[in-house]
Amino acid sequence: MSLPGFADVQAAATRLEGIALRTPLLENARVNAMLGGRLFIKAECLQRTGSFKLRGAYNFLSQMSEAQRRNGAVGWSSGNHAQGLAEAGRLLGVRTTIVMPADAPTLKVANTRASGAEIVLYDRVKDSREAIGQEISARTGATIVPPYDHPWILTGQGTVGIEIAEQAKAAGVVLDAVAAPCSGGGLSTGVALGVKGISPGTTVHAGEPAGFDDLARSLATGIKQKNDRLTGSICDALLAPTPGDITFPLAQKLLGPGLVVTDEEVLDAMELAFREFKLVVEPGGAVALAAALTGKLPVKGRAVAVVCSGGNVDHETFARALARRPQ
Amino acid sequence: MSLPGFADVQAAATRLEGIALRTPLLENARVNAMLGGRLFIKAECLQRTGSFKLRGAYNFLSQMSEAQRRNGAVGWSSGNHAQGLAEAGRLLGVRTTIVMPADAPTLKVANTRASGAEIVLYDRVKDSREAIGQEISARTGATIVPPYDHPWILTGQGTVGIEIAEQAKAAGVVLDAVAAPCSGGGLSTGVALGVKGISPGTTVHAGEPAGFDDLARSLATGIKQKNDRLTGSICDALLAPTPGDITFPLAQKLLGPGLVVTDEEVLDAMELAFREFKLVVEPGGAVALAAALTGKLPVKGRAVAVVCSGGNVDHETFARALARRPQ
Repeated sequence: MSLPGFADVQAAATRLEGIALRTPLLENARVNAMLGGRLFIKAECLQRTGSFKLRGAYNFLSQMSEAQRRNGAVGWSSGNHAQGLAEAGRLLGVRTTIVMPADAPTLKVANTRASGAEIVLYDRVKDSREAIGQEISARTGATIVPPYDHPWILTGQGTVGIEIAEQAKAAGVVLDAVAAPCSGGGLSTGVALGVKGISPGTTVHAGEPAGFDDLARSLATGIKQKNDRLTGSICDALLAPTPGDITFPLAQKLLGPGLVVTDEEVLDAMELAFREFKLVVEPGGAVALAAALTGKLPVKGRAVAVVCSGGNVDHETFARALARRPQ
Repeated sequence: MSLPGFADVQAAATRLEGIALRTPLLENARVNAMLGGRLFIKAECLQRTGSFKLRGAYNFLSQMSEAQRRNGAVGWSSGNHAQGLAEAGRLLGVRTTIVMPADAPTLKVANTRASGAEIVLYDRVKDSREAIGQEISARTGATIVPPYDHPWILTGQGTVGIEIAEQAKAAGVVLDAVAAPCSGGGLSTGVALGVKGISPGTTVHAGEPAGFDDLARSLATGIKQKNDRLTGSICDALLAPTPGDITFPLAQKLLGPGLVVTDEEVLDAMELAFREFKLVVEPGGAVALAAALTGKLPVKGRAVAVVCSGGNVDHETFARALARRPQ
């Protein structure tokens, strides 16, 4: 399979017209003064379902054949992909089945069910969600919709990159760098395709939580690396163990060095997004912003855009971010 | 002075192009299902300075003569008008002086100062802010920029209404009703001018906090009413004592019955905006949303848009809203 390109992202953008919200690119004079440059936030937390995941899922489902659509779609996720896939199914009239952990937050399960998806719960310790999903697919003919490692998924997410480049251009801004959160790499590689198709000189980076920086280490060594742990970061959306088979070669081709931030830096970024941008950003959605605020992604004297990729955060975690207000 | 009309709002929209952010009109499938209709949020909390107030202030300052601009501008406000006026001055190179209460939140004073405004503090008990502002104007020649009761101010705010009507039209939606928060009536009457110029059949309402419903009572009786108290609602931005001399006749001509909500209903609306729309809305910015969620502004079987007019809320108050999560 050849790697997807900019034209595939453009085609996805056409499919998503009137479906995905064209989220705003926000700027804040005080934050700019503090950083000594121009920082833009692509507020993808405002997207339908509270994250960018609707884009890839809708782009995937809308390319399934009529026959495939009749047999439905199946996916596994405890969070944003579940909600994005379920909502894409509702919009396109495709039955969806989502395999979710039995201990997933009640609200996320309820939200996914509210989009009309059938939920199959599994035990994180005893069961394999992939095996359950594959069994459902074999039995019902439902198409498996992977969370990131598929051209239709990552080019759908890449429409975020096209929008950033177009919005910056409309504002008369030439972006030096763009950064996006990274779990399996679907968003960051897609965004790189979209941005670089319009603005080839812009560097694109993927942000990851400390301890879950498999992509940063894979890019540095040239060989796919795995994370030591499967859980243990506040960024619950960014715990994929290793880069994908499609996303990794794309990342090697398109991305600059990885950016790695701590949980504390993520909470500080969430607090700033609350205070200055009036946005609710979830931990995993705030890693690229955290990289910009800490100087790991330099903003001084430059124009930089970061994707805030989701806002599906529970009340307790958001209260922790609020508690970090500056004195 | 004749009352301003739709053409004045259109002219303001031209002045604000590339200055005010065209904030998104957001919709949420789950909230729609819950209400049995379509609810749209005009997310004006994402506006530069965290509220719609930049629109009117910029529209005012940009119409001052060269000579007036050289002498600067002066206004009084403890909150959103202060920040909007200071930022408009920064953008247009007009020196601004803002008279603020000595007990105003440190953050709001700092934010206003960060835009380059000179701050004059007054004692809420002993001093009259109007007298201080008028003295500054007389001494320096600075133009007084009123918070709401002026055609240039309310037509600037009215650009929010033009955007709502245009965004709804682009989505193929005919709005039955629009509601906006109301203090002195600049936003609500401006929005009514803007909306009705494009969609004459849409009813526009003003929302107010219980106990500070001077406009609702004035509309009901046909005579300007005053609030009994000057403080005591969580909606610190909506405490103007009585409708303006220009906004009241406009309100009589353009607005439907007033909507009145309690502080508890406002906190619940802030929690829903956090959970479903990923927006930080301040108490005064959430009254129209609260009216829609409580059924005071019916959404069932209809298409309704509410303005969430600001997001300048302190951490403690937002934590109170978070604590009201549904069980």
